[in-house]
Amino acid sequence: MSQLLRVQNFNVSSDGFGAGEGQSLERPFGHADPGTMFAWAGATASWPNRTDPGGSRGLDDYLVRDFHHDIGAEIMGRNKFSPQRGPWENHEWQGWWGDEPPFHTPVFVMTHHERPSFTLSDTTFHFVGGDPAEVLAQARKAAGGKDVRLGGGATVIRQFLDADLVDTLHVAVSPDVVLGSGSRLWESPEELLDRFHCDVVPSPSGVVHHLFWRK
Amino acid sequence: MSQLLRVQNFNVSSDGFGAGEGQSLERPFGHADPGTMFAWAGATASWPNRTDPGGSRGLDDYLVRDFHHDIGAEIMGRNKFSPQRGPWENHEWQGWWGDEPPFHTPVFVMTHHERPSFTLSDTTFHFVGGDPAEVLAQARKAAGGKDVRLGGGATVIRQFLDADLVDTLHVAVSPDVVLGSGSRLWESPEELLDRFHCDVVPSPSGVVHHLFWRK
Repeated sequence: MSQLLRVQNFNVSSDGFGAGEGQSLERPFGHADPGTMFAWAGATASWPNRTDPGGSRGLDDYLVRDFHHDIGAEIMGRNKFSPQRGPWENHEWQGWWGDEPPFHTPVFVMTHHERPSFTLSDTTFHFVGGDPAEVLAQARKAAGGKDVRLGGGATVIRQFLDADLVDTLHVAVSPDVVLGSGSRLWESPEELLDRFHCDVVPSPSGVVHHLFWRK
Repeated sequence: MSQLLRVQNFNVSSDGFGAGEGQSLERPFGHADPGTMFAWAGATASWPNRTDPGGSRGLDDYLVRDFHHDIGAEIMGRNKFSPQRGPWENHEWQGWWGDEPPFHTPVFVMTHHERPSFTLSDTTFHFVGGDPAEVLAQARKAAGGKDVRLGGGATVIRQFLDADLVDTLHVAVSPDVVLGSGSRLWESPEELLDRFHCDVVPSPSGVVHHLFWRK
């Protein structure tokens, strides 16, 4: 079995945005409210940031607990790591992910600006240039035979889709969230149907899971 | 987190039977046709018996690939191991599961008749008496901190439900299959709603997934 490139648990608004405008240190999702966007995931038993023992174990929980399944590396855009633009001003701030990042694998952060790798708990962040195919080759090598997760944001997913490198996508659409502007994944999920099969699965929680795999 | 007891990928007909009548060596499911019952699972990329590289990666695939997720042991009824009844006539035949059983963990076969444990590949079969709580205690101990899968058949699942030992159930209902008689799980899934939440999730493949978790 080849190593797949998989988008897992990527959330978009009903109008196709993965994040709003105006990203800052305080607002990683810009004018979007991540609490609303990710409410479906936060309600599950498998949500990694859960602090109490409860949580649902229905459909949404399957999607959340699959996040790590057979994944050996993650690729993310720079804006999923930090709101900084341009050359790194300093290396002291180590991204949004805290002392125990939820990845537990090597992570490849795509950037035009060099920065030394560092490790937090069992996650090592590497900062890499190059086009999507080159970055994917590095991530596959680091993944030890496992699949690679494409973590987003939307701009990065679009780059890998345009290069036809994505094998599967799970995109959770929040029907009640309208953003109007920001980082756009699609105008409509139908844009992907020329190349992908798609199961559209409405969850009892309200979110609509879109599960794509290559034709 | 405590060790859950989980029913995973258990199939029933539209009238609630997990297997038909007249189990034999040649017909493990009696008059039921497992090819029809399990068609949804066999079509997925993660189906363990798949011989070609294709297969769907939509909703059904999530359910199939979750089969092993965080599972450290399985409990099954004797009829899931063998069609023999009464004392074991010989120990040469080692069950239906072949040289590479799909469990990859200790398996506890419930029986009133003693038989020595044996190992096939990375699966060890133990033959145990006792009531459901006693068998579950043994399986939990063997599971190394992970969850325990309750593999069925329907009679065994009913015993554990009656003892209130089951934490989650995934039951796939095949709407086009009517068996009329056999090993019954339920008259209706509504029987479990006093004790369990339930997500009812129709799959694009036609099967209807029922995902239960304790209230």
